[in-house]
Amino acid sequence: MLNLLNQHRTIRKYTEQPIDPQVLAQLFEAACRTSNTGNMQAYSIVSTTDKKLKEQLAPAHFNQPMITQAPVVLTFCADYNRFSKWCEQRQADPGYDNFQSFMATAIDTLLAAQTFCIAAESIGLGICYLGTTTYNAREIINTLKLPRLVVPITTITVGYPAEMPEQTDRLPLNAVVHYETYHDFTPTDIDQLYAEKESSEFYKQFVAENNKETLAQVFTDIRYSRKNNEFFSDKFLKVLKEQGFLSASNQQ
Amino acid sequence: MLNLLNQHRTIRKYTEQPIDPQVLAQLFEAACRTSNTGNMQAYSIVSTTDKKLKEQLAPAHFNQPMITQAPVVLTFCADYNRFSKWCEQRQADPGYDNFQSFMATAIDTLLAAQTFCIAAESIGLGICYLGTTTYNAREIINTLKLPRLVVPITTITVGYPAEMPEQTDRLPLNAVVHYETYHDFTPTDIDQLYAEKESSEFYKQFVAENNKETLAQVFTDIRYSRKNNEFFSDKFLKVLKEQGFLSASNQQ
Repeated sequence: MLNLLNQHRTIRKYTEQPIDPQVLAQLFEAACRTSNTGNMQAYSIVSTTDKKLKEQLAPAHFNQPMITQAPVVLTFCADYNRFSKWCEQRQADPGYDNFQSFMATAIDTLLAAQTFCIAAESIGLGICYLGTTTYNAREIINTLKLPRLVVPITTITVGYPAEMPEQTDRLPLNAVVHYETYHDFTPTDIDQLYAEKESSEFYKQFVAENNKETLAQVFTDIRYSRKNNEFFSDKFLKVLKEQGFLSASNQQ
Repeated sequence: MLNLLNQHRTIRKYTEQPIDPQVLAQLFEAACRTSNTGNMQAYSIVSTTDKKLKEQLAPAHFNQPMITQAPVVLTFCADYNRFSKWCEQRQADPGYDNFQSFMATAIDTLLAAQTFCIAAESIGLGICYLGTTTYNAREIINTLKLPRLVVPITTITVGYPAEMPEQTDRLPLNAVVHYETYHDFTPTDIDQLYAEKESSEFYKQFVAENNKETLAQVFTDIRYSRKNNEFFSDKFLKVLKEQGFLSASNQQ
């Protein structure tokens, strides 16, 4: 089991083999067993296999080929719509149109998504997370017809692997784990933690190909730039308002 | 493996057996293999075992007994502090003090948390998620000394199980899974999806004990009320601003 987790790789190329709907349902059942806030199960999984719909979703994911190539595209959504409808039908006032409720449902959505991925990998499927979901949530909402109080949080493409890529590197454990309280990093700590990554031939080539001086600049200038992050921040906050998760009182 | 996931129960009572630090490190290693945005590993795990620190954390978690009773309390934090410090030391401008970056790091934090939990359960440990983390993030930040660009997202108590509770119920799969696009719920759908839950003796008793007419009212009036959700929404948004994830331009 730990071995399975330690062997994780993101799979971006899939064979043409479809996923048996009953197999997929088993994986959804496992995902739904995940811990969740108050057992409200305030999330939804939209499972898209239709070619035309996948093509409509693709631009929201910057046309990354996995979306159209994977047999199944799963959009995991924070969802207080179902629960709120139930409350309204039961003489109860659903107070979930606010940011704290968004956080609770987003947390539950992501925990279920990761259980799904581990379940999928345990039976030989490959998965890829798409971080583009929060960038272009508005377009995904339109394509998948998501109602108020439903917001897509992450997307997973799933299929049988047609590649076995090298594992990506990870920082030393002491970059991530702090004992007792947080121990902030000195400049020397930072140099030590990133030394292995920065000295690897793979990343040296990556820096050269991108015409940058340092690996960090590839992130800040190209991959995750301030300008883009700020643009997509405003866009996603607008979506949260439109979908009902940021009420007037939250806007301060 | 699917069997392990399907057997999941939240464990709130632990034996006195400590967790071997090497075992814990193996679980952290597995958690760190989880997919993450751009391989930035923008998250931190604060592992607290000290009795006094756990007692200091307890009020932030409304003194739920798991915090002081569990041998290990893990606070999973969204963290762009380390990555930003690295950027600054490498002549790169870290543009991660915004809401989109918060979402990316929160997503990565939660996926790693869930991998940790599954890894822990696979070797016989029991876990409990504490949703109080986003309620009282400010108090947790103070106790754990979390710097700017670090925000606690979820807390997990871990230990060897001293109980084997019944599994909690789940809604039918078609409450959660939508095929192709989202199919919104009619009043009849809602009645059907919640019928089993509402007719169970367990929940009937729960409604009676809480002096409510419907199960939904127990949620809206007692467990997750509008008033509390709105109070904690404002509190958490304030934390996001204070920790640097909601810049002036995001406040619109």
